[in-house]
Formats: sequence, C-alpha cells, structure tokens
Amino acid sequence: MKLDELGEDAVVAQLTRSLRLDSRVRLGAGDDCAVVETTGDLQLLKSDCIIEGIHFLPDADPKWIGWKAICRSISDIAAMGGTPLDALVTLAVRPDTEFTWLKRVYLGLQTAAKSYAVNVVGGETAKSPGPVFLSVTVTGTVAGGRYASRSGGQKDDLLYVTGKLGGSIAGRHLRFRPRVAEARWLVQQFPVHAMMDLSDGLASDLPRLARASRVGFEVDLATLPLHQGCSLENGLQDGEDYELLFAVPPGAKRKLEAGWRTTFPKLRLTGIGRLVENGPSQFIGKGYDHFAR
Amino acid sequence: MKLDELGEDAVVAQLTRSLRLDSRVRLGAGDDCAVVETTGDLQLLKSDCIIEGIHFLPDADPKWIGWKAICRSISDIAAMGGTPLDALVTLAVRPDTEFTWLKRVYLGLQTAAKSYAVNVVGGETAKSPGPVFLSVTVTGTVAGGRYASRSGGQKDDLLYVTGKLGGSIAGRHLRFRPRVAEARWLVQQFPVHAMMDLSDGLASDLPRLARASRVGFEVDLATLPLHQGCSLENGLQDGEDYELLFAVPPGAKRKLEAGWRTTFPKLRLTGIGRLVENGPSQFIGKGYDHFAR
Repeated sequence: MKLDELGEDAVVAQLTRSLRLDSRVRLGAGDDCAVVETTGDLQLLKSDCIIEGIHFLPDADPKWIGWKAICRSISDIAAMGGTPLDALVTLAVRPDTEFTWLKRVYLGLQTAAKSYAVNVVGGETAKSPGPVFLSVTVTGTVAGGRYASRSGGQKDDLLYVTGKLGGSIAGRHLRFRPRVAEARWLVQQFPVHAMMDLSDGLASDLPRLARASRVGFEVDLATLPLHQGCSLENGLQDGEDYELLFAVPPGAKRKLEAGWRTTFPKLRLTGIGRLVENGPSQFIGKGYDHFAR
Repeated sequence: MKLDELGEDAVVAQLTRSLRLDSRVRLGAGDDCAVVETTGDLQLLKSDCIIEGIHFLPDADPKWIGWKAICRSISDIAAMGGTPLDALVTLAVRPDTEFTWLKRVYLGLQTAAKSYAVNVVGGETAKSPGPVFLSVTVTGTVAGGRYASRSGGQKDDLLYVTGKLGGSIAGRHLRFRPRVAEARWLVQQFPVHAMMDLSDGLASDLPRLARASRVGFEVDLATLPLHQGCSLENGLQDGEDYELLFAVPPGAKRKLEAGWRTTFPKLRLTGIGRLVENGPSQFIGKGYDHFAR
C-alpha cells in the first residue's frame, strides 16, 4: 500500500501508535506540540538530518536509515557527556512510497530509541518532490550541570579516541552505536577539557576542536586505531566514525586508561597525541566538507 | 560566491555569527549541541519542515522562506498557549547555491526569531541533491503548567477562529504572524478546552480537533471570516491560515468576546459554531492532505 492511498492521518496514526514514551511525556505525537517534563537545569539540544543520495543510498535497508537518523543526534548528545531524553522526527517522502518501507524506517528509529531510552514525542511527515529527507532533533540533559564542549582544550592535554577509525562506508556509517554511556562516564569521572564525536573524519574534526580551544595539536599517526583493511588516509578522512575524540590533562592518563579497561573492556581507547600551544598545527589531510565539489 | 567555493565551516561560521542569544543560552551554534537553561517544569517541543516545490516556489523571496520555516513551528507552540524559547535550524541546499541567497534565508529566520524572542541555538547544514529542505525545531514553555491540547473539547463548547481564512497562496502562507500573544492570553484568562493552529484548512483541522476530543461539531458556514476575494470553499480548504481554532465552554462567551476586543482590537475573533455529542459531524469538505494525489 502506498502513502497516497492511505492518506496522511492514517499514516501518522499508524506510525506513532507504538512509540516509546515514559512517564515524563505528558503529550506525545498527534497534537500541535509534544509536552514533556524537564529534568535538571541544563538542556542539550541538537538536530541533524540525513538525505537520500548523500547519507544513504536508495537501496539501503530502511531500518538502518531510521537507526542512523536518530543515532546521529544521539551521538552529539553523547559528545557533550549528556543523556538523551526526547526526539522529534521530521520525514519527507514521495507520496508513492510504500508504507512498508516507511514502517521499517520507524522500526529502526524505535529500536534505537529503546536502546538509548529516548522518547519519540512527535515531529512532522511531509511530501518530498524527490529524495527522502529525514531530520531528527534530540534533547538531552547533563548530570550536575557538567558537560564537555569543544572549546575547553588546553596546551599539553592528551588526546584520545574511542574504537577504531575508517572504512565506515562498508556499513558502519548506518549501524554505528553512539557512545552515550562511555561519554557520560568520562565526564563524570575525569576533567574532560574538550570532547566531540567524529562525524566528518579526524582530519576535519580535530582541527575544529583545536580551533575552538585556541590551541594546536600533534598526532602520532602510527598510533591511530584503524579498522581492518583501512589505510591511514581512510582513518583520517573517511568520516562517519561516530567515535569520541576528547582531551584530558596529562595527570589523568593512568587512572583513565586503567578505569576504561575495567569499565569498557570491549571498546578500545587510544591515546593519539596531544594539544600544543597555538601555532601551525600538523597537517593531517582534509576530511569531509558538505559543500566541497 | 557559491557555497562550494566557501566551504562548510566558513558558511556555518558566517551564518551563525549574529544569531540572537539571550542569557539562558550557555552554548549556541558551533559545538556538538546547544546548551540552554530550562525554564519551568513543562517543555513544549515541535519540529516542522518546508520543502522547495511543496511549501514554497524556487523564486520565492528567501527572506520569507526563512520566516515561514521558523514561524510554522512557533505557530504550533502558540497553539498550545506556550511561549517559544529556542530554535534549531536544519538546512539542506545544493552546493552551487549562492551564499547571498542563504544569508537572506537566515535574515528571515533571525527577523522572526527577534520578533518572537526566540534564540537560534544551532542546527545543521547539509548538501541536498535537489530541492531545498529547511526543518526547524522550536522549544517552548507554558506558564503555570497550563497548556491547551486538541483533545479537551467538550459537547456544547463554542468554537472560535482568529483572523480571516482562505487565499493564503497569494502570499500570506509565507508572511503570516503566529498568534503567540493571543494564544497565551486565551489560555491564561479562559478555560480553553482545546486549541490548534489552522495549517491544513478548517475542513481538515476541525475534524482533527473533534476526533481528538471524541466529539462532533457544527459550523455555521455563513459566519466564517473570509479574506477578501475568497469563496467559502477557499476558507475551508486552502490551508496555511495559521490562525487559531479553539473551543471554550459557553459560559465564557461574553467575557471572551469583550476582553478580546479590548486586548486585540486589530485582530478579528469569530464564533463559528460549537462542539456536539459524538455522531456524524457536518461535512465541510476536504482540506489539505500531504500525501493525496
């Protein structure tokens, strides 16, 4: 059955019927707005989008399209050391889209929402004249008002990345797992001066962190943790790793590395270099630029 | 200058430089997430999108495209009786887009944000393979926890609409003013049982309010306030009026109508009918369906 045979109200009613909602949600999808209880003094806000032909191919499994759409924003909440709370989904599709395809997108959205205890509280469904467009906003909170921005990095801080880098095009760019628990643990246990998630590749993202912190950086390229079959160039430039990059003062090294091994034994943590005084940083290539030709 | 000549970081830096931010905003655009102080116990959340070729034509003034994109979500916050607070903007454009065009979209976004005291705290800019896609999320708050959903309407409630209906295609669909102050006044002064904003036309939206409230409705079609040159059919079906539709108990009539004239002398308020016991409602035609052929 296609969407234009079902009609907008029936499509929305069916898609939103089984969305996860906890007791904080006073009003979910179906009204003009969602109404939720706030938690804590500070709120994190992030929206992001994925587009057919740019962030996924038309023949990608729609379940993983939905997963990726919400996990990109969850990953940004994680990158602050926050806990994701509520999500809004905006979806534009062609009217001749099969409803089964759309239901599978929602299955992916909901699977991720359940994994990360996120409420899908609303959004909007619209007609696209061409490519599928899927935008997700996620709100979050930070425990005790502690969060990690990109801009607090200091000279001599050690740089770490979680997991391995490169080669996400093989499928990890759809099926990645945002590092929510890991980032929260880091922010709560250590003086994380700066943190971000790696979405455009270390070669784009590390200079952004350094610029925001007004420092330079040095990376020991031989230490970069690469996925199997990946070159150094892949690890620096491929993008969509969704791993954490963070900076901590050198005194945290021993406790961080030992604590990490105990707490997250299955996920690698690698020291890759350090922040240095401002000046000409090491050139590590160019990552992904959304507007580059 | 085109976006692909400037590059993503330069584009984002220039667009976000002069965004309105008040003291609640700890961290605005440029980091992984925005960080804002919460206000009140309850939060309103809404996202919506506009797409080239569906919600605006390619030759529309980009300032009004930006205005419309943010005002659609502000209008939904208004429809709950809420106050809008923060906005996230997600924008997908072709890489060969002229930067001057994009700057004018942001001028419209910012003009609306200033008018309604909304902080533009972040978002995402991405490459579109085709049409321009602009999605805006707006958060809001409600004073004293009082908000108006669609579902509280009761038998015998009187139905009112603000302003006039129909003919928005002549330009009002881009340049409308969300009824924020009016809705807040209504919710604070009167027992508003149900409220929504008219985005798909009274013929679509009133049945939605009635269904959500599990009641029927009767409209006196002769009373419908129509824009000049509009037929009854235009008033019922055109959509994009962004006026308020609300239901109050009959006892509120006199005080509401007198209070409105004093408080909002320039904006018409019209009683158009009432809610009735559930059963076959009056047929008032079909409004806009996003997926209809």
